Amino acid sequence: MDKSAIQKELLKMFGKDRMLSDALDLMYYSYDSSFLTKLETTSPYAVVFPRSTEEVQKIMQFAYSHDINIVPRGAGTGETGGCVAVEGGIVLDLSQWKEIVEIDQKNMQVVVRPGVIHADLNSELAQYNLFFPPDPGSSLMCTVGGMVANNASGLRAVKYGTTEQYVLGLEVVTPKGDIIVTGGMKSRAIKNVSGLNLTKLMVGSEGVLGVITKIRLRCFPKPRARGIAMAVFDRLDDAPATVLDVYQAGILPSGIEVLDGSAIKAVNEFKPHIKLPDAEAILLFEVDGNPPSVEFEGDIIKEMAGKRARLVEWSTDPKSMAQLWEGRSVTAAAASRVRPDVSRIFAGEDISVPLSRVADVLRAIRELGQKYGIQVVNYGHIGDGNVHTAPVINPEDPAEVERVLQLVDEIHLLAIEMEGTTTGEHGVGAVRRRYAPLEHGIAHEYMLKVKQAFDPKGIMNPGKLI
Amino acid sequence: MDKSAIQKELLKMFGKDRMLSDALDLMYYSYDSSFLTKLETTSPYAVVFPRSTEEVQKIMQFAYSHDINIVPRGAGTGETGGCVAVEGGIVLDLSQWKEIVEIDQKNMQVVVRPGVIHADLNSELAQYNLFFPPDPGSSLMCTVGGMVANNASGLRAVKYGTTEQYVLGLEVVTPKGDIIVTGGMKSRAIKNVSGLNLTKLMVGSEGVLGVITKIRLRCFPKPRARGIAMAVFDRLDDAPATVLDVYQAGILPSGIEVLDGSAIKAVNEFKPHIKLPDAEAILLFEVDGNPPSVEFEGDIIKEMAGKRARLVEWSTDPKSMAQLWEGRSVTAAAASRVRPDVSRIFAGEDISVPLSRVADVLRAIRELGQKYGIQVVNYGHIGDGNVHTAPVINPEDPAEVERVLQLVDEIHLLAIEMEGTTTGEHGVGAVRRRYAPLEHGIAHEYMLKVKQAFDPKGIMNPGKLI
Repeated sequence: MDKSAIQKELLKMFGKDRMLSDALDLMYYSYDSSFLTKLETTSPYAVVFPRSTEEVQKIMQFAYSHDINIVPRGAGTGETGGCVAVEGGIVLDLSQWKEIVEIDQKNMQVVVRPGVIHADLNSELAQYNLFFPPDPGSSLMCTVGGMVANNASGLRAVKYGTTEQYVLGLEVVTPKGDIIVTGGMKSRAIKNVSGLNLTKLMVGSEGVLGVITKIRLRCFPKPRARGIAMAVFDRLDDAPATVLDVYQAGILPSGIEVLDGSAIKAVNEFKPHIKLPDAEAILLFEVDGNPPSVEFEGDIIKEMAGKRARLVEWSTDPKSMAQLWEGRSVTAAAASRVRPDVSRIFAGEDISVPLSRVADVLRAIRELGQKYGIQVVNYGHIGDGNVHTAPVINPEDPAEVERVLQLVDEIHLLAIEMEGTTTGEHGVGAVRRRYAPLEHGIAHEYMLKVKQAFDPKGIMNPGKLI
Repeated sequence: MDKSAIQKELLKMFGKDRMLSDALDLMYYSYDSSFLTKLETTSPYAVVFPRSTEEVQKIMQFAYSHDINIVPRGAGTGETGGCVAVEGGIVLDLSQWKEIVEIDQKNMQVVVRPGVIHADLNSELAQYNLFFPPDPGSSLMCTVGGMVANNASGLRAVKYGTTEQYVLGLEVVTPKGDIIVTGGMKSRAIKNVSGLNLTKLMVGSEGVLGVITKIRLRCFPKPRARGIAMAVFDRLDDAPATVLDVYQAGILPSGIEVLDGSAIKAVNEFKPHIKLPDAEAILLFEVDGNPPSVEFEGDIIKEMAGKRARLVEWSTDPKSMAQLWEGRSVTAAAASRVRPDVSRIFAGEDISVPLSRVADVLRAIRELGQKYGIQVVNYGHIGDGNVHTAPVINPEDPAEVERVLQLVDEIHLLAIEMEGTTTGEHGVGAVRRRYAPLEHGIAHEYMLKVKQAFDPKGIMNPGKLI
């Protein structure tokens, strides 16, 4: 079936208000936040906006019978090209399907459609004194469906884990058009070990197995108090050593963030009023819980950080906490402005390594940056070894693009060599797919077998993950 | 290949010290703790004790080429027949393979072979101020391999989740004899979203996809303090209502247990010195964390429980805590001794329902017990809706056996009707397999496809889970 015939069929199914086929409209869907998809855009054949499971089923049946690729998309905030039709196909834009189906306060769970925005969900849940703990940087924009498809996490994974931990069940439309419900067709049980765990197999599967149309999430009671500590270090190695000391003292903060020298410099140039102390590393700890617990943990963090840090500050006052956190809040933006003629790109930005290797990795990345003549800003979730590297380049300069691609390749290989992974939270998508066999060996062949079991024709989001 | 030819081959491979083929020895492997496998025992063709991944690979290659079933087994403490060769085959007894390969203190993780006993692992980890939170009742006997295969949990799942949450990676020998490593071949990353999540697919797969030969677990810092509250209720409904109030107050206890009137009576008859108050329900809360946090949460639990309970007691003193918990500790044993001529059986013992349905379910089970003339003792992990029902019968009485099987069937169907599951933590195994299509609908067909992808000949633990 050719492109215009596909468009004609989709127009019949969805009408002109819920179907896009103009080249200009499709252009918007030809990339996401990843550098590689911006470098090489691929427009889909068409975009549709389904608003019911039956509509998704209908389009899957149509696509399956005509061998047309299907690419589900949330808000497009991903950094891996996961929602871009890199091998052509129809994009299902699920971002408009944003119904909160049910908040089941008594059983502390919520059922949502895929397009609900993370921050909106947590605002709603707050009225019931509940929250969905994962906290991606894109909270104000990203959809819960995208979070599930990518197993998103963010700042709070140290204590609260990733999205996976909260997904109790999913409704999924498979490539053949079957509507399956994982975690039990009618179940609201919090604990359930019946059957193979298709729920957790789906979480993080990046749309290669089916289209997620409904999500049942477990929620937690909202913690009553929060505290923030900032610790400033003259030696990079003292930062991970302090993190380990805090863990050893029995504390599991809700988040531990690092800014290395490059990030501190970028922040101070971007927002001079923040006046971050000049240092090799700054750690930010967030603890949450009940008020006396937060104070107790704050005292221990002050004590542990005090052994190595030049300066430690601590606060539970909302205004002061925001000030302490301000440097971290603007890091991503600051990285984009280190020079007026350049942009921060998303590539090689999400490796995760064991805590014991974080300092070595940050040093190695700095050296690689020098080797390739590329400025790099490093920050990230040090508590779980997740390093966000921001290469800063002029994307109009082909030589610089060439060099940054080599740099990024080396960063990915470095992560694997350092007993880590090429991606801690952003996903594989199109951009890291070639490292999958290297990371997984023979297990990768079994991933392909599982994919085949769901999608024998290979129409679901091809060119991604595996 | 006939049984004696198989035995001869295995003798060559393992020698007489690590291979059993005597009928009497095999008898020991013909059942586990489940009532159904005791009712109808099935001996395997042989039992072997592999002690290396290569040995497991060798036996899998042998079994695959001759179409022989393979049944992995840990300590045999399961209640579902999961480790019994119900369709014949070779049992791999992994309980002797109990090496702790590495405790990586700096990265808070541990690598073990499948036969390590849960309590032993936690004793070792305690030396590093770490712990592996899931806490099954069989801790002193069960193996970590068995816990992973069944996604075990127990008392602490409310706050700490199930085994799944701690498994970072697995080495698995597939039916074809491939050695795969899930979660990254060389990875020690805490957070890793590369590839399909085969790790979580394997956890709880009850040996139907492959043999788990190595386990990498994340550990948590050991909490510094603990507290126990006991609350006594004259009305059954007040127990789940109090649990909800505690959650609503922002508290996530490490465990919340319930004993209903039947369990209270059984405990008092079994150990009169415990003197549990006569009541419709007793709740036990465990909170852990740092000392001021435990006190704070204890105060809130006292306040919340005080709204409905006749009596609330609270302690952080180890001796008093043990006294408060004693009733719960002996409940399982007490259930087995309610009359001298009877035994407590494990059947229908592990349903899990939403918290909002727990009181209804307990009442319904009591009525079903009366309908079938079977005494039933109810207790369990109310915090996650996981009800342990203990039918008490004379297993030598065929009429009583017939009636209890009907009762158990109704309990399983009741769980599904009440938006729960037939199994919250013990697993499906052979005994609950027939409910899988009912619980999962079309998703069950996809489970079979996944099974097929790993095990095209169907030799891995057939007759289980799906």
